[in-house]
Amino acid sequence: MPPRRFRLHLRRGARRRGARVTLDIGPDLDERDASRVREVVTHLLQRHDTATERADVVAIAEAYSNLSDRGRVRFFGMLTREFWTDTASVGDAIAVWQRTAGGSARVEAERNLRAVLTPPTARLLRSFTELHDGVKFLVDLRGDNLRLAGDPAISADDAAALEQVGLELKAQLSTLFDVGLLDLRRITWFASAALLEKLIEYEAVHTIQSWADLKNRLDWDRRCFAFFHPSMPDEPLVFVEVALTTGTPRELAPLLDATAPDVDPDHADTAVFYSISNCQPGLAGVNLGTALIEQVVDRLRRDLPKLQRFVTLSPIPGYRAWLEATLLADDLRPHERALLPASPERVAARVSHHAWDTDEAIEPAVVAMCARYLTTVRDGRALDPVANFHLSNGALIQRINWLADPSEIGRDRSAGLMANYVYEPDHIAERSEAFATRAEVPMSNAVRELLQVKKAS
Amino acid sequence: MPPRRFRLHLRRGARRRGARVTLDIGPDLDERDASRVREVVTHLLQRHDTATERADVVAIAEAYSNLSDRGRVRFFGMLTREFWTDTASVGDAIAVWQRTAGGSARVEAERNLRAVLTPPTARLLRSFTELHDGVKFLVDLRGDNLRLAGDPAISADDAAALEQVGLELKAQLSTLFDVGLLDLRRITWFASAALLEKLIEYEAVHTIQSWADLKNRLDWDRRCFAFFHPSMPDEPLVFVEVALTTGTPRELAPLLDATAPDVDPDHADTAVFYSISNCQPGLAGVNLGTALIEQVVDRLRRDLPKLQRFVTLSPIPGYRAWLEATLLADDLRPHERALLPASPERVAARVSHHAWDTDEAIEPAVVAMCARYLTTVRDGRALDPVANFHLSNGALIQRINWLADPSEIGRDRSAGLMANYVYEPDHIAERSEAFATRAEVPMSNAVRELLQVKKAS
Amino acid sequence: MPPRRFRLHLRRGARRRGARVTLDIGPDLDERDASRVREVVTHLLQRHDTATERADVVAIAEAYSNLSDRGRVRFFGMLTREFWTDTASVGDAIAVWQRTAGGSARVEAERNLRAVLTPPTARLLRSFTELHDGVKFLVDLRGDNLRLAGDPAISADDAAALEQVGLELKAQLSTLFDVGLLDLRRITWFASAALLEKLIEYEAVHTIQSWADLKNRLDWDRRCFAFFHPSMPDEPLVFVEVALTTGTPRELAPLLDATAPDVDPDHADTAVFYSISNCQPGLAGVNLGTALIEQVVDRLRRDLPKLQRFVTLSPIPGYRAWLEATLLADDLRPHERALLPASPERVAARVSHHAWDTDEAIEPAVVAMCARYLTTVRDGRALDPVANFHLSNGALIQRINWLADPSEIGRDRSAGLMANYVYEPDHIAERSEAFATRAEVPMSNAVRELLQVKKAS
Amino acid sequence: MPPRRFRLHLRRGARRRGARVTLDIGPDLDERDASRVREVVTHLLQRHDTATERADVVAIAEAYSNLSDRGRVRFFGMLTREFWTDTASVGDAIAVWQRTAGGSARVEAERNLRAVLTPPTARLLRSFTELHDGVKFLVDLRGDNLRLAGDPAISADDAAALEQVGLELKAQLSTLFDVGLLDLRRITWFASAALLEKLIEYEAVHTIQSWADLKNRLDWDRRCFAFFHPSMPDEPLVFVEVALTTGTPRELAPLLDATAPDVDPDHADTAVFYSISNCQPGLAGVNLGTALIEQVVDRLRRDLPKLQRFVTLSPIPGYRAWLEATLLADDLRPHERALLPASPERVAARVSHHAWDTDEAIEPAVVAMCARYLTTVRDGRALDPVANFHLSNGALIQRINWLADPSEIGRDRSAGLMANYVYEPDHIAERSEAFATRAEVPMSNAVRELLQVKKAS
Repeated sequence: MPPRRFRLHLRRGARRRGARVTLDIGPDLDERDASRVREVVTHLLQRHDTATERADVVAIAEAYSNLSDRGRVRFFGMLTREFWTDTASVGDAIAVWQRTAGGSARVEAERNLRAVLTPPTARLLRSFTELHDGVKFLVDLRGDNLRLAGDPAISADDAAALEQVGLELKAQLSTLFDVGLLDLRRITWFASAALLEKLIEYEAVHTIQSWADLKNRLDWDRRCFAFFHPSMPDEPLVFVEVALTTGTPRELAPLLDATAPDVDPDHADTAVFYSISNCQPGLAGVNLGTALIEQVVDRLRRDLPKLQRFVTLSPIPGYRAWLEATLLADDLRPHERALLPASPERVAARVSHHAWDTDEAIEPAVVAMCARYLTTVRDGRALDPVANFHLSNGALIQRINWLADPSEIGRDRSAGLMANYVYEPDHIAERSEAFATRAEVPMSNAVRELLQVKKAS
Repeated sequence: MPPRRFRLHLRRGARRRGARVTLDIGPDLDERDASRVREVVTHLLQRHDTATERADVVAIAEAYSNLSDRGRVRFFGMLTREFWTDTASVGDAIAVWQRTAGGSARVEAERNLRAVLTPPTARLLRSFTELHDGVKFLVDLRGDNLRLAGDPAISADDAAALEQVGLELKAQLSTLFDVGLLDLRRITWFASAALLEKLIEYEAVHTIQSWADLKNRLDWDRRCFAFFHPSMPDEPLVFVEVALTTGTPRELAPLLDATAPDVDPDHADTAVFYSISNCQPGLAGVNLGTALIEQVVDRLRRDLPKLQRFVTLSPIPGYRAWLEATLLADDLRPHERALLPASPERVAARVSHHAWDTDEAIEPAVVAMCARYLTTVRDGRALDPVANFHLSNGALIQRINWLADPSEIGRDRSAGLMANYVYEPDHIAERSEAFATRAEVPMSNAVRELLQVKKAS
Repeated sequence: MPPRRFRLHLRRGARRRGARVTLDIGPDLDERDASRVREVVTHLLQRHDTATERADVVAIAEAYSNLSDRGRVRFFGMLTREFWTDTASVGDAIAVWQRTAGGSARVEAERNLRAVLTPPTARLLRSFTELHDGVKFLVDLRGDNLRLAGDPAISADDAAALEQVGLELKAQLSTLFDVGLLDLRRITWFASAALLEKLIEYEAVHTIQSWADLKNRLDWDRRCFAFFHPSMPDEPLVFVEVALTTGTPRELAPLLDATAPDVDPDHADTAVFYSISNCQPGLAGVNLGTALIEQVVDRLRRDLPKLQRFVTLSPIPGYRAWLEATLLADDLRPHERALLPASPERVAARVSHHAWDTDEAIEPAVVAMCARYLTTVRDGRALDPVANFHLSNGALIQRINWLADPSEIGRDRSAGLMANYVYEPDHIAERSEAFATRAEVPMSNAVRELLQVKKAS
Repeated sequence: MPPRRFRLHLRRGARRRGARVTLDIGPDLDERDASRVREVVTHLLQRHDTATERADVVAIAEAYSNLSDRGRVRFFGMLTREFWTDTASVGDAIAVWQRTAGGSARVEAERNLRAVLTPPTARLLRSFTELHDGVKFLVDLRGDNLRLAGDPAISADDAAALEQVGLELKAQLSTLFDVGLLDLRRITWFASAALLEKLIEYEAVHTIQSWADLKNRLDWDRRCFAFFHPSMPDEPLVFVEVALTTGTPRELAPLLDATAPDVDPDHADTAVFYSISNCQPGLAGVNLGTALIEQVVDRLRRDLPKLQRFVTLSPIPGYRAWLEATLLADDLRPHERALLPASPERVAARVSHHAWDTDEAIEPAVVAMCARYLTTVRDGRALDPVANFHLSNGALIQRINWLADPSEIGRDRSAGLMANYVYEPDHIAERSEAFATRAEVPMSNAVRELLQVKKAS
């Protein structure tokens, strides 16, 4: 499979210049081609003139985009070997630092040391942002980096090189995608088709089946919001789909059903966040979802003052695997064991059975164990990734819903369960802080009771 | 004079939160108030939650904006003393680095060392960009920093602290104001009054006298372009005023004269860049003018394909002082001396005389010496700041014009002379490079002849 | 004084066509030139092809715009003589009508009769709207028509011709400027300078002194709204200036004073309409002000729900003349006479005296007589034109303010008085109807008392 | 089938007024309901106040929109019976006219006669345009009127009433949709989905199969333009689809094929207008297509100066029926007869045969007869409606293409043939004029030869 072709557009001016640099090289970056790339990068890092420098940057970006995966891995390797810090310079700067006693000499020594510790590759990466579409190039470059790093066939050295450049990329993207620079925009059926087709492409939680399905999700009792970066005005970064309802929903189907009757937004009392999707693989680890939820809650409160609840209806994607492992390991708490209608092995088998959803006998145990799963924090993170996301954002676990998503994927990952997390604007900050610093998991009384010994129902 | 009041607008959401933090402190940041600011900054740097953190950031920004100059100097001092690098941590990280032999351990040790060398103040400064108007706050903060640092009454310690934070600020602004993130926009009489009044305020070269004067400068035979940052959409960063003419102008007056007949833009063959002004003192040293000229040349070539010349009509602001000093020091070259109509002292006196502009006898010497002045490079920089700007950008010195600006300021600074620099698109890159790396000053034959011995005219 | 030069811009396409028609004629439309114009108009009215027709239309519009006033009067005369209804055709169509008994034949006969009664000039005028800027041309054409008709030196025949075409023009403009086609836009300091300079030019009630004065009138405690036509997007048609206050103002000065403290719009309880200006003389008699006030009241209620009162502070421009005439004719009611501090002639003289504003003795009589003046309706119209405007719109006369506008123009026209009219949204419709159909003048108790005999105060 | 439900949105203000009028009536407008509608219409036509009037207008529009088809026919009937001209008034005005000898009295008499000939219904219809969405309401009202008039089951009286109101509607819409008031906009994939779905809905010539098909038709080697009315900004009125090619295409398939290779627009020499669709049935007879083609040709010439040819690839929708009738009537010219490979009846049968497209023997005759069909003008109109459209617009018949559209619909209507019409900008005006006034049909030599006796090929 050929790697993705980057579309590169120079700002018009640069293309017209005589200064255009072209690098016609083969796809695999063999040694002869590598030395030519090396030469242009070296040239670039020595130049002072913006225009010339930019021609170099374009040549490098175009050359990269024509490389095969093999060539790209070699390119990243070259960066770490030849455009990284210089040990001798670092050593010298350390020696200077060690000689200074303090005061402004010490401050300057630190500044110098920090400068020599910044690899030339960092400057190369930053140069890309000057290109038209350059920010998108950088995002896609990191996407590429992560994809290549995930290839199990890669050598340990290559993996290390990819990670080394990858961390630098992530740091730069974190700065470029600072929340303060992003725009929150509502997306409706009046958005451009060019934008909307990206929602269809990127929706990760509940696949958008067609343009008609998309239109339903943008109906007047729905809301959709996304973050955008000023340099990528037509590329959503992360988007959330919201349904306006009366009351907190217990199951998924009505939210996705185009034929369900609409709720008049002015009468709705609840906003349900039923899908959050990242659109840019290259922004993995750059947390935009938290700020998105925060800003969307604020926006909805302003636009629809009658809203009283901000809840999610969320999958519990790690639960099914954890449940089976826990049952098979017989790692049960007494009140959980009391709820089991059969031996743990039998229950594990029944959970896997295709007709389990009619097996109401296992419901009490499966729900109770889910409460334990959702509220377990290890090394500062909730076991379940979705739970961890919402708890970090300051939400409370409100309810666990049996048979909320009986689709195949819903059963495979979440054992058919879904959770409601609730965002209470006045408590978001303190809960987020308490979770981050003291691993406190806020939950409703209903969920709390599931954790305790109860009389058999 | 009270320091400038910053206007701060929180993004709406944050303001509604219960999490709002208020810092009611006095203007001079006495020790009790300082300890409260210190506490909030410390709190901020420990937090993980975006929303809470933002409330802290707003409190700090508002507190800063209420400080007197004395309080602001103390604030910068506090940052350098209490929110800077930790010597012990740096020492430890150095020790780790020194123990690693290479490989990924060394890479990681360098990354850690670089991290501990990044002062907490850097993170505080970056936090401001998350505020609405936060980018503008950071720009104004640096403007403040430079203004305070320029106060001759300041102590050496304070000056050092101001510079220490100032360098960090400049580095962050250089990243935020990367040319790739900026928009080039044409400004016409159809721009908003709110924007246009800023042109009047910021025009640095040839004062805009009135709205009528401004309208003339935006007439159909004029062009005005500016760079904008997406987070400051109504604040021009740097703008250039262009007149469309036939032929290269020799004097300033017709360009500023609202009653001069218009040239049909479709018949013009020359674009004259007659004024470039920076609008943000806080962006001093962040070179935006070069990219502005480069992009404007490209834009004009596209819009008006009949244009054949891109020239400036520029002041020579350091010439008058240099001329007098050179004459009084009798530091003349033979061909210059041959052109003098009287002794150097007498000529220096005549240059200062209010009626010198009718003193045609001194013209040959004054013009010839100006050619020397304009083409002299010292430590990689042209003596004249305007010449240095255009030569760095890849322009050629084309012509020196006698009596081109006989205004008081024109005579005081430039001895009434103005220079034409010409931008030839096909040579900009190479000239810029040659000037930067080999101090080569490109000039027309006419200017070159002024540097040589000629027969007395 | 040469007549205003029309600026005409053909849609680009038409200009490129070979079909361009040019009419090089002298300014006064002598007989030879007139016959050429006649020929092109005739040609135009026979054509079927849009493009050719348009070239003719442009030629006629350009020819008109080059005419002197004398030529223009002749042009209008030509239209009435040569491009008006054909008596024979009308007679024939009448004969057909008279022969039909009813049914569809009668309907068709009426349609035909109506068609032959529509003068060819009507089609010519409508053709202008197809030009770029054609709607503006038509507006200016009527402005011209009214200006020429107002010339006292004009002959009776010319006056009749001007009126004949003028009525046709007004009918077409009434259709083109149907309120349903207009946009209401708020104007702020962020509007284009090109637009704002038109406010300065057109403000008819209280002259805008400077850009600084304008900026004050667009401050955050002010509102300014205007109607725009889609074919004239940069030309305001009529605009209203509103001040947000607490309580109903009694005098003009604070509203125009840039140094008066601002009111926080969120705390204001009153919107004061202190100036309404028409911008297009050619739209005289096309009532846009009524719809403007109606829509602005609605808009303000939505934007600022705390507003409780919508009032004006209005001049009473016919009062001073009426007052003097009434006094000198000794046409006084008993309670008015009882309030006079001297004989009617003496009071009339005192009103004219330059220091009358300190003459408090005349206040009771001057105010009482003003109440009579404002509430007098003759032939369905209030005597005072401003009163008539607001009463037609459904306002109530709330208060008469002594010494509200002591400016020279205020004293000359309104005897220094100003009136507050109040718009109560729930009563606008019924009051407007009652005034139009039954000449009922709604007024406050305070005004009503001024109309009655009172004990001397 | 229930009639289309109109969506009506009052301007917000009016809805809040106390003046709201509601007409709760049944769907069929029985006599009791009719009298209530009559009352509101009468009230409306007597009112002077805009706001009240508008409440009436809304009530009427809402009542209409709730009517069944039966009720709507009755509504139109009521308008013609009760809100049409008053015979007595017309008679009186005629008497006055007949008494006047001329001069201004005659002019006034004509004006009055014209006024009484304008039915009250005209004012009612015009009132609708003041509503938000009112222009769209009027367009849909006429669409309704035409649909009902087309019902074969309707009585002669009802048909006459529908036509009577319909002509008034058409006249008003012709004024409202004057080309000078319309916007030409290019439509791309960046247009809103809400707009693009209307293209899918309205495309009349070559059905758009899917969003992917639509995207192909908006690709970079395509152009799509539409007219919009300012009061219906999201409703295209008429749109044209253009393909950029090298050379004039002979068949349809490549133009609709999404997998065909793209042409670089900068290298294309030909613009092919392959589909023009009206979007508003209510605008039937209001010719917008002519101006659309004219403006699109101009726009393309500006945007893509290398274009040399503007051609169509058009169906010949009346040809197949004409061909069969002509053959069966044996109405052949000698040179046509000479080309027939069999008797006229046999050829007619072969044309109808499903495999005729492989029957090359009939091609010469079928093509030659098509040339006759296309160039035949009767009563000032070309026989073929598409030919008539393009010839009226000033195009020339360039080529007839055999087997250009072998689709079922293509064979059924156009006998599989398609024509190229060419628009030569320098000749459009004269050709349009010549066709309109002298029925001259411009054609290429190739087409002309098809009309003449040729030696058998």
